[in-house]
Amino acid sequence: MTRTPLASLSLLAVTLFATPLFAQSPAAKPAPLVIAEQGSFFVGGRNVKSETLSTLPAYAASGTISVEQMYVRYQKPVDARRTPLTLIHGCCLTGKTWETTPDGRMGWDEYFVRKGFATYVIDQVSRGRSAADPSLFNAVRQGKTPAAETPPIFAAGQEAAWAIFRFGQEYPQVHPGMRFPLAAKEEFFKQMVVDWIGTLPTPNPTVKALSELAIKLDGTVLVSHSQSGIYPFQTAALATAGIAGIISIEPGACPDPTKDLAPYLKIPTMVLWGDYVDQAPRWAPRLKLCRDFAAAVTKAGGKADLVVLPEIGIKGNSHMLMQDDNSLEIADMLVTWIEKNVAAKQN
Amino acid sequence: MTRTPLASLSLLAVTLFATPLFAQSPAAKPAPLVIAEQGSFFVGGRNVKSETLSTLPAYAASGTISVEQMYVRYQKPVDARRTPLTLIHGCCLTGKTWETTPDGRMGWDEYFVRKGFATYVIDQVSRGRSAADPSLFNAVRQGKTPAAETPPIFAAGQEAAWAIFRFGQEYPQVHPGMRFPLAAKEEFFKQMVVDWIGTLPTPNPTVKALSELAIKLDGTVLVSHSQSGIYPFQTAALATAGIAGIISIEPGACPDPTKDLAPYLKIPTMVLWGDYVDQAPRWAPRLKLCRDFAAAVTKAGGKADLVVLPEIGIKGNSHMLMQDDNSLEIADMLVTWIEKNVAAKQN
Repeated sequence: MTRTPLASLSLLAVTLFATPLFAQSPAAKPAPLVIAEQGSFFVGGRNVKSETLSTLPAYAASGTISVEQMYVRYQKPVDARRTPLTLIHGCCLTGKTWETTPDGRMGWDEYFVRKGFATYVIDQVSRGRSAADPSLFNAVRQGKTPAAETPPIFAAGQEAAWAIFRFGQEYPQVHPGMRFPLAAKEEFFKQMVVDWIGTLPTPNPTVKALSELAIKLDGTVLVSHSQSGIYPFQTAALATAGIAGIISIEPGACPDPTKDLAPYLKIPTMVLWGDYVDQAPRWAPRLKLCRDFAAAVTKAGGKADLVVLPEIGIKGNSHMLMQDDNSLEIADMLVTWIEKNVAAKQN
Repeated sequence: MTRTPLASLSLLAVTLFATPLFAQSPAAKPAPLVIAEQGSFFVGGRNVKSETLSTLPAYAASGTISVEQMYVRYQKPVDARRTPLTLIHGCCLTGKTWETTPDGRMGWDEYFVRKGFATYVIDQVSRGRSAADPSLFNAVRQGKTPAAETPPIFAAGQEAAWAIFRFGQEYPQVHPGMRFPLAAKEEFFKQMVVDWIGTLPTPNPTVKALSELAIKLDGTVLVSHSQSGIYPFQTAALATAGIAGIISIEPGACPDPTKDLAPYLKIPTMVLWGDYVDQAPRWAPRLKLCRDFAAAVTKAGGKADLVVLPEIGIKGNSHMLMQDDNSLEIADMLVTWIEKNVAAKQN
């Protein structure tokens, strides 16, 4: 593997275009979905004791709760022969990211099952159906802890999110050619939840839980997005066991290309970017870091493809490309890449 | 309808026993599940502006967020001919309540689909995948709001939950004959999340969202539990449109039997209770209120069945009876009741 990243990219573009990229049709009703098994469970978690679980008379202040577990929902198709996928959402969002799009089209959670992958969708630790700890808030409420120590939970406002998700340069301007279904933007904004990440240690406990899940699955492609973009790499640094591949979509960070790359050299990796990145001060330096990372891994003998969609002829994608109007086309591209680069699971 | 509640109950017991109540077998792998359609969406919600969304530099303090929307995930079987079910979880929990049981058995969310019902699972407003508002916490953190005004979010501790869920009289004692899978109690406790209900108005905005959902579905049986037990009744008081039936499982409250019963007289209703209720100071008065409510509705010409499982020969059920070891038997009983009492949906 001595190809430069650019040569690697050109080859990738050819491979991807081998699958015709037709526009998504307004879809005849799809055939019934046949599921061998579905369900949900938790990974990780530890018990903590607290004296400030509640300030309400109906619920005791003192007791034990479980924190840092990660909620996982999964579906397995009949005769799944491919390596399972694990879909990891980003900032201020939950596993809903991957489900039905805001304008009502099929989400990747179902589409990948239809393509033969057992598909696992998580809620990050302390988000959605994964529990958080209210103790410090109640300690503040009771005057036991200074107000300034209130944990820094936050919500991303719609106006700020507009630029972060690259719907336009700033709210409410829209990038020309935008593929995000903005007519359904209200439904999208309803997906956004309170984010507790600022209350958690680094690396986020989600990383440890992902490692546990990967080992339990005995092989999975970790598909991360945005805030969680770095998690598969952090998981690999913890233990490469069970990580069959990494697809990091518009990561908030890539690993430092000047540091130890050993954990990443045996895991086929794609880092995927949408459009308008160079116009976004938040994202342009991150893309540059990822380019440098992919180049460094390639130079060191690993497999890391850096794909910027407009550079291979696909324009108009936002940061939320799994919900854009060509989302299933992009999913097909990922399937092609996985088929080429990730060993099939032997069941 | 001039039967007394007791006569009604005896008749019900006979009807229910007509379906043989065999112990749940350790289950051969079930046949593949065939889904006509699945997905998720939000109901309700409104935009609010805030100046304290965030105290972190990476996210703006000022902006608009959507609150009070309700997350809904659904699955429709092929040729669903029955009235859809809407499953509404209780305190400190999320829609996970109805999914895979802590010990890994099939949840009601899937079982009812297999029985021919389109099945909708919600996360209550401000819980799980339904957003909450962090603004007041951040105002406290910044000293703009007194600490005593910190919103009263809470978590139920495992020791207190033990008695509330009636695993035993008090932690860690176990009621004799207990059917809850306590060997998997750690997995169950991981389902418990922070509850924001104390920060919300009464009736809970979930009620309005349920009404909107019921109307959208043009007919659904609202199946509620515990804290949400009263919600279907509150929804009916708002508007009976779309409510094809009510199954309230161990409700925290039934409607006041001395007040206006008109909203409940045309909706077939079952209020369902497990075992050990008379030993539980928290629950015994609630059961009594529900008995009085069912009697009053029946007397006024409505259809309200009050079912206490041990009174019809089914013993050992906890408050979390949808996860007990006979959960599918109880589901079958509900199916029988729905078939008898709720008009089939005409598609």
